[in-house]
Amino acid sequence: MSIYNFCAGPAMLPPAVMEKAQKEFLDWQGLGVSVMEISHRSKEFLALTAQCEASLRRLMNISDEFEVLFMHGGGRGQFAAVPLNLHVDNKAAVYCENGVWSKGAVDEAVKFTTVTELDVRNDSDEQFSIKPVNEWQFPADPSYIHYCPNETIDGIEVFDVPSHPTAPIVADMSSTILSREFDVDQFDLIYAGAQKNIGPSGLAIVIIRKTLLEYQGLPKPGVFDYALEVKQGSMYNTPPTFAWYLAAEVFDWLEQNGGVKAMEQQNIAKAELLYGFIDESPFYSNKVAKHCRSRMNVPFWLNDESLNAQFLAQAKEAGLLALEGHRIVGGMRASIYNAMPLGGVQALVDFMAQFAKEHS
Amino acid sequence: MSIYNFCAGPAMLPPAVMEKAQKEFLDWQGLGVSVMEISHRSKEFLALTAQCEASLRRLMNISDEFEVLFMHGGGRGQFAAVPLNLHVDNKAAVYCENGVWSKGAVDEAVKFTTVTELDVRNDSDEQFSIKPVNEWQFPADPSYIHYCPNETIDGIEVFDVPSHPTAPIVADMSSTILSREFDVDQFDLIYAGAQKNIGPSGLAIVIIRKTLLEYQGLPKPGVFDYALEVKQGSMYNTPPTFAWYLAAEVFDWLEQNGGVKAMEQQNIAKAELLYGFIDESPFYSNKVAKHCRSRMNVPFWLNDESLNAQFLAQAKEAGLLALEGHRIVGGMRASIYNAMPLGGVQALVDFMAQFAKEHS
Repeated sequence: MSIYNFCAGPAMLPPAVMEKAQKEFLDWQGLGVSVMEISHRSKEFLALTAQCEASLRRLMNISDEFEVLFMHGGGRGQFAAVPLNLHVDNKAAVYCENGVWSKGAVDEAVKFTTVTELDVRNDSDEQFSIKPVNEWQFPADPSYIHYCPNETIDGIEVFDVPSHPTAPIVADMSSTILSREFDVDQFDLIYAGAQKNIGPSGLAIVIIRKTLLEYQGLPKPGVFDYALEVKQGSMYNTPPTFAWYLAAEVFDWLEQNGGVKAMEQQNIAKAELLYGFIDESPFYSNKVAKHCRSRMNVPFWLNDESLNAQFLAQAKEAGLLALEGHRIVGGMRASIYNAMPLGGVQALVDFMAQFAKEHS
Repeated sequence: MSIYNFCAGPAMLPPAVMEKAQKEFLDWQGLGVSVMEISHRSKEFLALTAQCEASLRRLMNISDEFEVLFMHGGGRGQFAAVPLNLHVDNKAAVYCENGVWSKGAVDEAVKFTTVTELDVRNDSDEQFSIKPVNEWQFPADPSYIHYCPNETIDGIEVFDVPSHPTAPIVADMSSTILSREFDVDQFDLIYAGAQKNIGPSGLAIVIIRKTLLEYQGLPKPGVFDYALEVKQGSMYNTPPTFAWYLAAEVFDWLEQNGGVKAMEQQNIAKAELLYGFIDESPFYSNKVAKHCRSRMNVPFWLNDESLNAQFLAQAKEAGLLALEGHRIVGGMRASIYNAMPLGGVQALVDFMAQFAKEHS
C-alpha cells in the first residue's frame, strides 16, 4: 500500500530526497561521519551551503540585489525579526490580515512597533474571500507592508502581489515558497519556515533586498539580526546544519524535476483535481472563493460532520495520513505541497468518492 | 579503520543512536513516514516529547521546582533570551568572564540590560587559570549572575558552582551538560545548545526554576519567551522536531549506559589519559591549570607549530578527525564529549605518541 502524508507541516519530503539522506546518514561524502556531525565551518559544509544558495537563486531567479539567509527559529521567529529589523521611529507597519497566520504575525509585531491592521477579507455567509489586491488601501507612509500569500489554516491564497510607492513589501511565504513562480523583484523581504516546501522544521529562509540591511531597527537578538547574519554568512552561531543539508537536497531535487515552473503546473493539476471533485460532490464542501483558493492547503468539510472520526479512521487505513483539519477551523485539510505527487491526490479523491458512496 | 571524530560541535553522536535513527529514518514507529514528517502535535510526537522530558529529568535529577524547555536558536539564542526574560529595571546582571563564550554572552546581553563584567581569570605567563569560585566578588544586588561552566574554546572548566543570597544563578552548560553530575538545585536557569552532548544543532534545552517565570523582563520574540513556551509545551511554534527526536534517543542511550554518573567516570578517565600523556610529553603542551582543565574540550599545542599541518593531515589519514584548534586560539583541540569512547582517546594518544617519535 502506498502511503500519502497530507500533514500541513512538518510535511512530507520528496521520497527520493529521504532515501538519499537515509543512505548517506552515517557517512556523508565519504567522510566517515554524518553531515550533522561535522563543523559548520568545515570546507565540506561550506561547499554545501554555497551550492544550496546558488540552487535557490536559480530556482527563484533571485538577483544580486538580494541576500539569502538560512536562520534559526522558524516562521514565527521571523514574525519578531521583521519588526525588530525594519522598525522605523514614528512610522507604522501595515499588516494585511487574510487569515490566522497573518493575524499571528500582528500579535508578535505589536510588541515591537506600531501596527496598522488592514482587514483584506471579504467574507459573506456563502463564502470566504479576500478583496482584490489592487483595492487594498494603504496609508501614505508605512514603514513596511506585511502580508501572507498563503494562509495554511484558512486555505486562502493571494495570487497578486501588493505594491506601494515607498514601503518595502514583506511576505510570509512559509507555505507557498517554491510552489509557483514569483517575481522576487516585486518583494523586498521574503521569509519562509522550512517545514512545508523546503525541509524539516527548525530552519527559516530569508531573502532580503540589500538596501534593507541599512535599517537600524531595534536592539535585537543576534540570531535575528539580518545585517549581522549576512556578514556572518548565516553563521553568527551554529546553524541547524542537518535541516540546511536537507534543504539543499530538496533544491537539487527541484532542479532535477523541472524547477518551480514544473512544480507550479503539477500543483495546479493537483488543486484542480481535488477542488473539482469537492465542488461536484454533494457530500463535501469548501467555502473559499475560487479566485483565492490555496493550491497548497485544501480545507474541506464533510456535510455530515458526525462522520468525521470515521472518515479519518478509514483514510488512515487506506494510507492517507494527517487529514484532520486545524483545531481552529475543524473539518479536514489536505496539504499538497511540492512533494505530494498527483497520484497521492488521485488516491485521496478516489477514497473520498468511495467514502461518500458508502455513506450517502 | 575506526573513525573518531573530535569535532567541538556539531559533534559526533553515539553510534548506536545514529544507527537506530538511520534504520527508522523512513518509517518511524510503523507510521510509514519519517519522524520529521509528522505533526509536532500528533499523539505520537507528543508521547516522544513527554518521554524525552521525563528521561532528562531522571538523568539530571530535576525536581518539580523546574520547567524544562526545548527551544529554537541554539546557545546564542539563549544569550539574548536570558536578559530579555530576566532583566530587572535599575539592576545590573553580573557576567563572570572566564573565556570566549562567557564574553560572547556579554556582547549579546549589553544590547538589552545593564551588565557588570567580572573577570574571573587568573592567568600568568606560565598558565591559564581561574580564581576559585568562592573568591568571585559579586555586587550586592544583581538581577542575575551568569557564568559558563565549560569554555569550549579555552578548554577551561569551572567545577564549583557560584552562589548568591538573592540573585538567580544562570549557567551556559552547552558543552558540559550531562557530562558530569550537577546539583540542579544550585541553579536557577540552565541552558545548553544541543550540538555537543545532546543532539544535532538547532535545538537548545532550558531548565528554569518556576519562580523565574513570573519575571516581566522586556518585550521579546515569542520563541524566546520562557513563560509563553512553558504554557505552550515548547510548541509556541513548530519546534525542530528531528533534533528533539534525536535528543530523546541520546537520553535513552545515556540511561541504558549508566546515566550521568557512568558518563562522568568515563569522562574523567578519558581526560586523565589525554592530559596525562600531554603533560608527560616534551612534544605537546596544554597551558591550563590542572584544577580547571576541561574534561570535554582539550586544547593542545605542538611545541613546534611548523608541524601543525602535517599533524592534522596524518591524523586524518589515521581516522582521527576535526582536531584543528579554534581559529581564535590556534593549535589543536580534541573534543571528547560523552559519545567519544575511551578507545577513541586511546587511539588519539597512540597517534600523538607515534607522531612525536617520528618528529623528535
